[in-house]
Amino acid sequence: MSTALFTDLYELTMAQSYLEHNKTGKAVFSLFVRRLPKERNFLVSCGLKTLVEYLAKYQFTKEDIAYLRSLNKFSEELLAYLSAYRFRGNLYAIPEGRIVFQNEPLIQVEGTLPEVQILETLVINLIHFQTMIASKAARNYLASRGKMLVDFGLRRSHMLMAGLYAARAAFIAGFDGTSNVEAGNRFGVPVFGTMAHSYVMAYDSEEEAFRAFVKSFPRSALLLIDTYDTLAAARIAAKLGQEGVPITGVRLDSGDIPSLARGVRRILDEAGLRQVKIFVSSGVDEYSISKWLADGVPVDAFGVGTHFITSADKPYLDMAYKLTEYEHQPKFKTSPGKATFPFLRQVGRTYEQGLMAGDETVRMGSAHQGEPLVQLIMQAGELVASLPDEPAIRETFFADVQRLPAAMKGIDKVDYSVTVR
Amino acid sequence: MSTALFTDLYELTMAQSYLEHNKTGKAVFSLFVRRLPKERNFLVSCGLKTLVEYLAKYQFTKEDIAYLRSLNKFSEELLAYLSAYRFRGNLYAIPEGRIVFQNEPLIQVEGTLPEVQILETLVINLIHFQTMIASKAARNYLASRGKMLVDFGLRRSHMLMAGLYAARAAFIAGFDGTSNVEAGNRFGVPVFGTMAHSYVMAYDSEEEAFRAFVKSFPRSALLLIDTYDTLAAARIAAKLGQEGVPITGVRLDSGDIPSLARGVRRILDEAGLRQVKIFVSSGVDEYSISKWLADGVPVDAFGVGTHFITSADKPYLDMAYKLTEYEHQPKFKTSPGKATFPFLRQVGRTYEQGLMAGDETVRMGSAHQGEPLVQLIMQAGELVASLPDEPAIRETFFADVQRLPAAMKGIDKVDYSVTVR
Repeated sequence: MSTALFTDLYELTMAQSYLEHNKTGKAVFSLFVRRLPKERNFLVSCGLKTLVEYLAKYQFTKEDIAYLRSLNKFSEELLAYLSAYRFRGNLYAIPEGRIVFQNEPLIQVEGTLPEVQILETLVINLIHFQTMIASKAARNYLASRGKMLVDFGLRRSHMLMAGLYAARAAFIAGFDGTSNVEAGNRFGVPVFGTMAHSYVMAYDSEEEAFRAFVKSFPRSALLLIDTYDTLAAARIAAKLGQEGVPITGVRLDSGDIPSLARGVRRILDEAGLRQVKIFVSSGVDEYSISKWLADGVPVDAFGVGTHFITSADKPYLDMAYKLTEYEHQPKFKTSPGKATFPFLRQVGRTYEQGLMAGDETVRMGSAHQGEPLVQLIMQAGELVASLPDEPAIRETFFADVQRLPAAMKGIDKVDYSVTVR
Repeated sequence: MSTALFTDLYELTMAQSYLEHNKTGKAVFSLFVRRLPKERNFLVSCGLKTLVEYLAKYQFTKEDIAYLRSLNKFSEELLAYLSAYRFRGNLYAIPEGRIVFQNEPLIQVEGTLPEVQILETLVINLIHFQTMIASKAARNYLASRGKMLVDFGLRRSHMLMAGLYAARAAFIAGFDGTSNVEAGNRFGVPVFGTMAHSYVMAYDSEEEAFRAFVKSFPRSALLLIDTYDTLAAARIAAKLGQEGVPITGVRLDSGDIPSLARGVRRILDEAGLRQVKIFVSSGVDEYSISKWLADGVPVDAFGVGTHFITSADKPYLDMAYKLTEYEHQPKFKTSPGKATFPFLRQVGRTYEQGLMAGDETVRMGSAHQGEPLVQLIMQAGELVASLPDEPAIRETFFADVQRLPAAMKGIDKVDYSVTVR
């Protein structure tokens, strides 16, 4: 399927006007987040590999051109330009899995002005979503203190592709796996599942349902125990466990989780079933995880759905794709609250005692302190960097987490210094 | 592309266990919203046509089966069942564009238990997103009191497909158009565009940029005037207008909109340019639109982006797909706050003086008051209803808006009575 028409109309009208007025010099656009919301101490760069894949196949089909012609808005000059369009520019990026901050160029695209203008909507769309979700996932990961975390969000994702790339972003940012089968197929993310209420309801009793399910999956049966009465169902599970029926865990999906988890844990422990895990999937996000674990609520694993996959506490980032250089001249806006910074840029990161101590962004090629974060990814339209697979990107994230100051790992706001030179 | 693996793993594990235990009797699942959030007085049913299209092509490819086999979780019986799977059941729905409320069955799927269980994730995913977005769009539509509304959300949508279906949902719920070119191509939604800051910045001055753009688009030039200093740019636009340069409108994308819009209107009016429209695209949602229009801020059109396409004030609905009937027996949950209601159902809507006065849901076939909302859409896997095109669905929405009590059209919470019998 062609994705070239998944764009804002103005990218094409501007391209037409640029061509008409010979505005085809070399331009640089930069994608960055102006400021971090109070609900985020850092972001996790995510989506670069997807962008590279989309750029490699980005072209306007004959059908696309025919539709554009039918709008009676476009010149034949533009339509010929679009028909021949292939991305032949340079792409710079901060690699996926890196922890990033405000005013840092996550993606920079260099090429002729119409060539890079046309990509605006695509670049923001792909990187904004995945970076937002990876950043939200990272907060859940840090709150969970090593307990198991699984993405259950597909049903609340915005159409199917969002669920797929959210599962990828979550895995990169520390989740153990996903319920999303296609994410397993496409990206090798470990897939997990339990049972739904419908399974319990299809049987005449919970006991019958539980026995049937364990018979089907004797090595991995997680029983859903909140269909009717959670503590009563926990007692049924305990009875089965004492009989020797192999139960891996139980799942709570409603009600007052602290009180139910404690009650269920007591029932299981009194039956000698200390190894049976408690899995919670109701109202789970970094705030509830933090509170439950601080209060000693006995939960072993979390299924994270709605709040994570919609980034519900902050469902968008203040991200923009702005012209920063044209024909080697600096370009920047001065709108109040929306100012931008000129030139192709590098980011230098300084560490103190192994922890991130401050970043600075400078014009590419200028001297800077610390570790350079921006890499050249595509040159003249060709991939020139090796893009790691998802498990390797996840290791990049874990390495950056080790370098994150402790206070920034919590859910309360801590600012980080980014100096723009 | 096969979409069958875009599902939660547990749909497949449950299907395997159902087959193993001969739980293959007739089942009914119902998709409904448990309660409306305080930020929504009503919902707009949306996504049915997409669901029908996905169901028609829903099948597991050889590659899908090979991946599932590689997981070592599934029986050959299940894999054979999935290989042969085609949806052969019945689909009932409240048509797209209808105004709907809590506890009303938006979608009901009837078939064998594994057949309809497997569809859970897909049904929720497609209908939740589009209904959430149409419902959010309707609030913007009602707040805008007939002023022009355009979807500018694609860049903040969750991957590209979300942007496409959000544009469709917004058009159905009263928007005039979209910036999303593919939504024009696919659904005939009118497409609109202006210019970006990069266009202005690519020229040596705003005046040069404005002149060049109007030359390219003499019939539809909307000038973006907030790149550097909004009032100064408005004076440039006014000067050009007085010279006879044909300017359709100006766009404000940052700053204090009420004060800037008044200042710009004054500059334009004093230049005799009363016909030049003011288009606002910064911080636009139903709350800001309501306030600006109540305060008499001179705005002619709105570009609605981030807040609408992420449903930012309420980024999810409490929607579930639950078993309501199995082998003709009623099925329902009793979990606190998550209770469900049994049987295939009809909804009857009563009107008083032409306005909606209350709904009741009853077992399908039972007597009910008022207009029945639920229709049979697919029978034995075949489409048996005619699905209207998007302009016709939009008319359905407009007709329902006429029947909505006035108090429910505002942004403050008003409850509506839905009786479950």
